[in-house]
Amino acid sequence: MTKHIYVYSPSGAVRDKAAFKRGVARLRALGHEVEVDQDALTSYQRFAGDDATRLAAIHRAAASKADVALISRGGYGLTRILPGIQYKKVAKAIERGMMFVGISDFTAFQNAVMAQTGAVTWAGPALCEGFGVNGEPDDIMEACFNDLLVGQGEGAGWRQHREHVAVASASTALTLNNCSLWGGNLTVLTSLLGTPYFPEIKRGILFLEDVGEHPYRIERMLTQLLFSGVLTRQKAVVFGQFTEFKLVSHDRGFKLSGVMDWLRKQINIPVLTNLPYGHVATKVLLPVGATVDLTVDGRDALIFWGNH
Amino acid sequence: MTKHIYVYSPSGAVRDKAAFKRGVARLRALGHEVEVDQDALTSYQRFAGDDATRLAAIHRAAASKADVALISRGGYGLTRILPGIQYKKVAKAIERGMMFVGISDFTAFQNAVMAQTGAVTWAGPALCEGFGVNGEPDDIMEACFNDLLVGQGEGAGWRQHREHVAVASASTALTLNNCSLWGGNLTVLTSLLGTPYFPEIKRGILFLEDVGEHPYRIERMLTQLLFSGVLTRQKAVVFGQFTEFKLVSHDRGFKLSGVMDWLRKQINIPVLTNLPYGHVATKVLLPVGATVDLTVDGRDALIFWGNH
Repeated sequence: MTKHIYVYSPSGAVRDKAAFKRGVARLRALGHEVEVDQDALTSYQRFAGDDATRLAAIHRAAASKADVALISRGGYGLTRILPGIQYKKVAKAIERGMMFVGISDFTAFQNAVMAQTGAVTWAGPALCEGFGVNGEPDDIMEACFNDLLVGQGEGAGWRQHREHVAVASASTALTLNNCSLWGGNLTVLTSLLGTPYFPEIKRGILFLEDVGEHPYRIERMLTQLLFSGVLTRQKAVVFGQFTEFKLVSHDRGFKLSGVMDWLRKQINIPVLTNLPYGHVATKVLLPVGATVDLTVDGRDALIFWGNH
Repeated sequence: MTKHIYVYSPSGAVRDKAAFKRGVARLRALGHEVEVDQDALTSYQRFAGDDATRLAAIHRAAASKADVALISRGGYGLTRILPGIQYKKVAKAIERGMMFVGISDFTAFQNAVMAQTGAVTWAGPALCEGFGVNGEPDDIMEACFNDLLVGQGEGAGWRQHREHVAVASASTALTLNNCSLWGGNLTVLTSLLGTPYFPEIKRGILFLEDVGEHPYRIERMLTQLLFSGVLTRQKAVVFGQFTEFKLVSHDRGFKLSGVMDWLRKQINIPVLTNLPYGHVATKVLLPVGATVDLTVDGRDALIFWGNH
């Protein structure tokens, strides 16, 4: 089924033009109509154009007739332009059926849209890292993306890490209905705390991923979410993939699984692990801002939005 | 004049024992009585002992008869134990005349004490990096530390960067009286935002430093302070030293001075630069939580607490 995909760049400048081209070609090979924003390959310092350029790109994407607005890549750049986004325009596009898809820095946009309008966006691939890889894009990611496009995506299931389930409160069977799914990149999300762009979610399932952040930094961010009362208002925390950090000799046994164990002692809600989402090839698509159900049975977990 | 200095470790484990010994020896050579906490050299994972051990060390320091409680080093470890600190005990020690001195991770303690009690602590050296250097400790730091000990410290003056003064609103003469001085390490401070350990300061002079943070990360943290309304409630922002970060080819002209210029366009208050404070040898001591006056005349700036 041919879909109309609008590719734009709200964050970092695209340096890997070959990946960009491969991504566009891949989406076209899948049968889709790909519209490339006029400034998708613009560059200003480390950004894909100056602030006004990137804001205009977002608003052109929202004003387009596309089914999907897909970011070219993440990086850094959305946080500083959050006050300039016309949220009503974005929400109206979503109401018309547009699906905004992205990852990483896009977390700022997604949670700001949720906080300002309650509209749903999709955590998923970016063009370059998702479809522009050298070789075949990941099967599961592409299947999930296709499910989204044809309206068949209903949920995301996965298997948790064995070592965490043993100590987790989530080790027993668990069902949570009518929760709000939200989250994304931990660093980007935490950088919104205290601002009008941080969603106030009371019955939430918070999913988190990050890249290149040492476990002590991950812990410090979780501490902020904890002490600010955000975590205790949630129904569950779901850890996705945390990649590309390096433990050092000074750590002497301090590591990410220890951070998760520490967190479990601080909060009285399930802390799940190993959600296939983050800076990895194999990832699911997740509706940020949607009402979902979560079921856990031992290591098996499922986030399901098909009922809502 | 002999002073009693209590050395303790609330944050990271001391790995450089030689620096620790040199620091203690230096303070003794300056004529001081140095009391070393029983767990100052304890190690658990990356921390100077587990959470209970480090909390006990803080409370032993507060209960001691020392004039100065000096941290051995920073690192990471204070944030996660903030709820366990007995703030009244700390405030009572400060009331009796104790001066808590430290830097970096100590920012968490200092701002939490300020938020919870309003008591004044001192941003200054840590034992190892300040007094335990291989060779002579920095003259200016040592003079400022001595001024503090003998009660003669009244202010800190410095010269701003030339290139910033040209564009700064602070380029003209300026006097700000009766402001609250606060701040410290930007990353550590920002990680307190939204929690009960972040001071609510309305007429503040906010000083900031950081180490190993790329300008885009510095900007993202400033964005959080901006969007949360913290910056616009201040009377001035004072940048100290930002060190040990690396620009990359992707930056293409994006740099720290540009971040400062960007910030000046966002807020209508003076943004000063080059305060001699941070992860550098030459640094002044600053009273976090104190009432101060700020005067600026071209490149020359002075933070003065001698009137209060």
